[in-house]
Amino acid sequence: MTELTLAAAQALVSAALAHGREKTMQPLAVAVLDARGALRAFGAEDGTSLKRGDIARGKASGAIALGVGSRALHRMAQERPHFIESMHGVVGALVPVPGGVLLRDASGAVVGAVGISGDNADNDEAAALAGAAAVGLTADPGK
Amino acid sequence: MTELTLAAAQALVSAALAHGREKTMQPLAVAVLDARGALRAFGAEDGTSLKRGDIARGKASGAIALGVGSRALHRMAQERPHFIESMHGVVGALVPVPGGVLLRDASGAVVGAVGISGDNADNDEAAALAGAAAVGLTADPGK
Amino acid sequence: MTELTLAAAQALVSAALAHGREKTMQPLAVAVLDARGALRAFGAEDGTSLKRGDIARGKASGAIALGVGSRALHRMAQERPHFIESMHGVVGALVPVPGGVLLRDASGAVVGAVGISGDNADNDEAAALAGAAAVGLTADPGK
Amino acid sequence: MTELTLAAAQALVSAALAHGREKTMQPLAVAVLDARGALRAFGAEDGTSLKRGDIARGKASGAIALGVGSRALHRMAQERPHFIESMHGVVGALVPVPGGVLLRDASGAVVGAVGISGDNADNDEAAALAGAAAVGLTADPGK
Repeated sequence: MTELTLAAAQALVSAALAHGREKTMQPLAVAVLDARGALRAFGAEDGTSLKRGDIARGKASGAIALGVGSRALHRMAQERPHFIESMHGVVGALVPVPGGVLLRDASGAVVGAVGISGDNADNDEAAALAGAAAVGLTADPGK
Repeated sequence: MTELTLAAAQALVSAALAHGREKTMQPLAVAVLDARGALRAFGAEDGTSLKRGDIARGKASGAIALGVGSRALHRMAQERPHFIESMHGVVGALVPVPGGVLLRDASGAVVGAVGISGDNADNDEAAALAGAAAVGLTADPGK
Repeated sequence: MTELTLAAAQALVSAALAHGREKTMQPLAVAVLDARGALRAFGAEDGTSLKRGDIARGKASGAIALGVGSRALHRMAQERPHFIESMHGVVGALVPVPGGVLLRDASGAVVGAVGISGDNADNDEAAALAGAAAVGLTADPGK
Repeated sequence: MTELTLAAAQALVSAALAHGREKTMQPLAVAVLDARGALRAFGAEDGTSLKRGDIARGKASGAIALGVGSRALHRMAQERPHFIESMHGVVGALVPVPGGVLLRDASGAVVGAVGISGDNADNDEAAALAGAAAVGLTADPGK
């Protein structure tokens, strides 16, 4: 498995935020976790609300915890709300909304996850995909 | 950004409670937070129930955490209940019901939030708007 | 038992803060609870740190929870640390340091508690005593 | 009060990590909070242990919560262990060890805090001071 480096995590944050600025999105917060679920790089733009960064991290945490992008968690929350509710006790802070994306290397192994919050969920996810592409990782947003 | 002073926060509490008395509302609790989400002034009228003040604070906390008035949180809770449920783990105590209002200065910057509980949600919100107006701040109740 | 009114709670906050200003103390936060442990009035001066108000409330909560002023909780924490440690799970946030003072009426009944934080513990307690005296309640700081 | 920008927070992280490399320190994690206690920038070097980043954040959170550098929290923990223990319930995750440094602007106002963990506490603090200096903020490590 490729290890996610700090350099890659920081480059991902920068590329995701650059995408948001290019698309004139609302101020974004971006959290990058490694394969262990540990935070490796993070940035919250000027103007983000008090807990916006924790929401971003909660999208990534849910993805890495369950091994699926948070778009899949969103679907599960609609289909089987009791399951996702129970995850709050298991995972801790977890946000089942699109914008939490698994990061896979060329072999398909999960090397981390990125979570973004600030604009609407689809835009948050688009910024995550842009960030992943910029560092040569395959993004898995769930479906 | 303008700093919310204790004097302004106390004047807001007094004006909101005066509005409630003038409209013969049920006993109210009023919590004023600054931009950090820290409680700055609070008053709970005689006759308020045991946790009424914590409900008021939870309306304001939700607003400041997500950067929208709690009327918007109420709508989100109806449209995407799993999202608001997940916020309990991110924000802590949060009450997604009208009556939590962002306070903005003349430049539009969020300088704090006020949360009120005791009467029905629309009346709680009206008291919050009256309090904000009395201290020259723009109230943003969400929509 | 005399009920603690909002008017008395607010007057107590004002008197305690006036005492702090007269003695040129550091910025103070003052929390007044009623006999149920419910917050009734609160004020945090300009310049108080992020969690200063929660520390003030934690002093008052400890006092009302155990029925002794927080100076007694401080002594217990030194003599029997395991007991006070266990109280964190029972009471929730509780701060076993002087400055949390029970409020008693003329019959000796506990009608509430006030907690103050911001200066050193002895000064915090002195401001609490001044506040209680200003509204004709007997302060019991513990010993 | 000066607002802490994302650009400044990121530059602080980079400068602190550069200092650690120059001094051949163990791998470091660096967390920068703004005046609200919200995370604004973060980086954890390759090789940091699973919770190293949360320790870094806990140093910064303690500093911003109580308004003193974590070196002062360390002293308090030795002199009055029951007080610092009680802060876990008030503040949440808090690490009372040097390496959590308040960031002040030219007027002396607290604009944020940085927490670093990875090497010994004195070295962690030295990296925090280097980071603050690089962005023109006054570092207050506590005493």
